[in-house]
Amino acid sequence: MTKNTKVNAAILIIGNEILSGRTQDTNTSTLANWLNTIGVKVNEVRVVPDIEKKIIETLNVLRAENNYVFTTGGIGPTHDDITAQSVSKAFGLKYEIHKEAFKILEAYYKPGEFNEGRQKMVWMPENAELILNPTSGAPGFSVKNVFCLPGVPSILKSMLGGIKNKIVGGQPILSHTISLRTVESEIASSLTKVQDENKEVEIGSYPFFHAGKLGVSIVLRSEDQSKIDICNAEILKFIKEKKIEIVDR
Amino acid sequence: MTKNTKVNAAILIIGNEILSGRTQDTNTSTLANWLNTIGVKVNEVRVVPDIEKKIIETLNVLRAENNYVFTTGGIGPTHDDITAQSVSKAFGLKYEIHKEAFKILEAYYKPGEFNEGRQKMVWMPENAELILNPTSGAPGFSVKNVFCLPGVPSILKSMLGGIKNKIVGGQPILSHTISLRTVESEIASSLTKVQDENKEVEIGSYPFFHAGKLGVSIVLRSEDQSKIDICNAEILKFIKEKKIEIVDR
Repeated sequence: MTKNTKVNAAILIIGNEILSGRTQDTNTSTLANWLNTIGVKVNEVRVVPDIEKKIIETLNVLRAENNYVFTTGGIGPTHDDITAQSVSKAFGLKYEIHKEAFKILEAYYKPGEFNEGRQKMVWMPENAELILNPTSGAPGFSVKNVFCLPGVPSILKSMLGGIKNKIVGGQPILSHTISLRTVESEIASSLTKVQDENKEVEIGSYPFFHAGKLGVSIVLRSEDQSKIDICNAEILKFIKEKKIEIVDR
Repeated sequence: MTKNTKVNAAILIIGNEILSGRTQDTNTSTLANWLNTIGVKVNEVRVVPDIEKKIIETLNVLRAENNYVFTTGGIGPTHDDITAQSVSKAFGLKYEIHKEAFKILEAYYKPGEFNEGRQKMVWMPENAELILNPTSGAPGFSVKNVFCLPGVPSILKSMLGGIKNKIVGGQPILSHTISLRTVESEIASSLTKVQDENKEVEIGSYPFFHAGKLGVSIVLRSEDQSKIDICNAEILKFIKEKKIEIVDR
């Protein structure tokens, strides 16, 4: 398959616990870093509450605008887990028992433990493809370009290996970081010039505080290492002229 | 002023560094927890890249749909800081030097240090109201119902006190958590009944792993303590019947 160099994705975080501030989302960072390595760029993230209408509307926008959508959360056994039924409605598909998922969980639990709550987790959009869960049994699923993963970070991480071969990425997104003992305003105009002359490299500038000292990290991102190298050389040149110290964070 | 009990907000996180996975956003949790205390509920969060068109489109949707919008990031001195110009365009306002902000930064920096990069930080939408920054000088700003804050978490936190009196919240959103030594599937059907009979309390169920043991936290959220108390009693009743242990996390 020919690799498309511009493959993008959106992440849809489903859950009141993120919006209330109770839970700190870490899945965005996990997914984004992993997607970078397989050449998929995250264009947008949205966090929505456990409200079916909102999930459906948001999913339908994101799946039309992006090559892939990854949802997290809402696939457990309780009343507030409504991702599978929402995805079914978004695609106009039946919400039904997934026979393969049923067999997996029936075998996973001890006799008598595959109770009503757990059986809810095998209801999925018709013909959904399973995403196996090596940590806690209950599979995620995908429908077309939408991949539905759990909200618990350790479980989500353990399931990524199983979907890698279902995603056609582009060139991996490469990055290079230069950390400096300076403040942003000292380098702002020089950095603007480098960005203006190198439109195909995404140049970010991020202040940091480490061990009581201020600094700035410049991050260069591109699919093309040679373009990163050109930017890097131009930045090192003005850093030398300004006598700015290069540091490791 | 009469308190509206349904005041809501959206958070718009601006920055490639969150989408690339390089930086873990913590501002959502900070803002959401703080907003809860003043009776504002976060309805939605979006993370967008440093692309003017995307920022403008997203801001215009969110400010129409919510009582308040809080943006984070993109108000520093470098080329990738484009929040102020994007907000100006979103509102159809001039992007110009804010005289008061200029005076503040002129006084903040030593003579000769208020350079070109730093002067970029006083460009704002015309007639923007300043949000003072006790940590690092450069103010944020607000235009109508949109409040623009920096991305650096410690600086953002230090600026919240200064906007509290500009926000008219509703009843503070109260919450109560019950942590149990069980798994979600054991309580799912009982909890569904409690939720069905108490529509005005938002009941969430969140598995946790702590000190090597599994558990579930049930979170009850409402503006009305008496409704939380009713739910709590119903939950304690079925917990007792099921002989489930209550734990502290």
